[in-house]
Amino acid sequence: MIVESSLTETRSIVRAARQHGRSVGCIPTMGALHQGHVSLIEIARQQCDFVVVTIFVNPTQFGPNEDFTQYPRTLAADLEMCHAAGADLIFTPPVTTMYAGSAQTIVRVTKLAQVLEGAHRPGHFDGVSTVVAKLLNVTEPGRAYFGQKDFQQQLIVRQMCVDLDLPVEIITCPIIREADGLAMSSRNRYLSVVERKQASQLFQTLKLAENLAENSALPPPEIARQMLDYLKSVDGIDVQYAVIADALTLELLTDRSNSAVALLAVKVGSTRLIDNQILRFR
Amino acid sequence: MIVESSLTETRSIVRAARQHGRSVGCIPTMGALHQGHVSLIEIARQQCDFVVVTIFVNPTQFGPNEDFTQYPRTLAADLEMCHAAGADLIFTPPVTTMYAGSAQTIVRVTKLAQVLEGAHRPGHFDGVSTVVAKLLNVTEPGRAYFGQKDFQQQLIVRQMCVDLDLPVEIITCPIIREADGLAMSSRNRYLSVVERKQASQLFQTLKLAENLAENSALPPPEIARQMLDYLKSVDGIDVQYAVIADALTLELLTDRSNSAVALLAVKVGSTRLIDNQILRFR
Repeated sequence: MIVESSLTETRSIVRAARQHGRSVGCIPTMGALHQGHVSLIEIARQQCDFVVVTIFVNPTQFGPNEDFTQYPRTLAADLEMCHAAGADLIFTPPVTTMYAGSAQTIVRVTKLAQVLEGAHRPGHFDGVSTVVAKLLNVTEPGRAYFGQKDFQQQLIVRQMCVDLDLPVEIITCPIIREADGLAMSSRNRYLSVVERKQASQLFQTLKLAENLAENSALPPPEIARQMLDYLKSVDGIDVQYAVIADALTLELLTDRSNSAVALLAVKVGSTRLIDNQILRFR
Repeated sequence: MIVESSLTETRSIVRAARQHGRSVGCIPTMGALHQGHVSLIEIARQQCDFVVVTIFVNPTQFGPNEDFTQYPRTLAADLEMCHAAGADLIFTPPVTTMYAGSAQTIVRVTKLAQVLEGAHRPGHFDGVSTVVAKLLNVTEPGRAYFGQKDFQQQLIVRQMCVDLDLPVEIITCPIIREADGLAMSSRNRYLSVVERKQASQLFQTLKLAENLAENSALPPPEIARQMLDYLKSVDGIDVQYAVIADALTLELLTDRSNSAVALLAVKVGSTRLIDNQILRFR
């Protein structure tokens, strides 16, 4: 496994692999890797000949009051996990490599990025789509892998690639959960023991939504209301949103459609968590 | 020479050329080709093994009151000129290929695109940088060719490629002029005989600036004032701007720097024309 911080070196290594006929898969990450990331690397390993993981805590996707400086940096452990999962190349650029002082270009997905996370985190998705465009241009993969956990993010990255004719296939991989259902997240390590227990109620809320979708005739706004009521009953949870949306457009659903996703965002103490669940209406 | 309207076909033809070890040059155009475009194709022909010309009148770079519907479309003549200049592949996509109904992604260069043309044509450069990013992603060239005539555009495209890590070298080629100095432009054909004569004074204005840069000690703002005075003395010309700016940042110059460009934009009748000249201070 090669670990490389140079952009031009990374590009030449990947190009050499491609010129030898090897298919390339890329997994963009911010490090602080967990089993969710590992599953992405493992899926890429099965589907591609050459697997690149990028590790870059991207400053432009954090708001001014968010956790950029506190965000966990665990490079040594990350590299071990990448190696164990079978990655070939790790690209770990410094911030100055990714953003020159003169940098002034934004890749902006408009409609999809304005709602939900976009509404709660102004500028966040501009940072995400811009850095992902850059990382895909550096690594030039045939496939790139994202977790369903960040549901809106994978939709936005897909839309960006289609709209900009980027020659890459986006693969969305299943959410990996802890034993009690909490979706794996680099931010889970911020949680205290009490908060960690409270956080497990996010999964229960999604199970409630799934149950109502499959076993009742309730319309989506009523299911969403029950999700909200459930979350509000949990001590220590501050709900940011709990909705049922079209799984392609993210428009809020009013009737029982086939393409639906339950999405929620909460704060547990000072830690912001998101989760989601695809719904199938009976 | 192959003429292709399909995006996926175009991509596979270029990829096949590259896989045979051929270097690829791309010249993005809006058609209505003239000797300026021909010179770009000829330079690409000298530097690259496989030359792609794109012909696409891009709706998103025209303002609501601009000349999108009137813009000259001369495909048969364009193809003859491309063939004569030695192009290998012409990509002529329909609008629906380039912009699906769901398209919602903008590539925005910020600072450089806010002044001069950007100030007079709101949204214009968003359209340019977005479509150029798309065309470069479709044709994946090692080099792309732009005319110095659109000085701000080539700066913005360069900046975009650097900022997004697009693996393409931008080559800026000299302005090609008519015998009386008028810079070649697809829009020159809008000019009446009288307007055509008035338009030649743009070049005289740039000559004046060049002369004052080389043979006086006047500061840039004073040279710009004399350019403006000169243009204002010409019947039928409505000046939009006449400035001397830093040739890299486009900031207006106050003292005699080595990296300077005189830039002007006027309306002659209802036709908008731009021109520029790199200056070397004595």
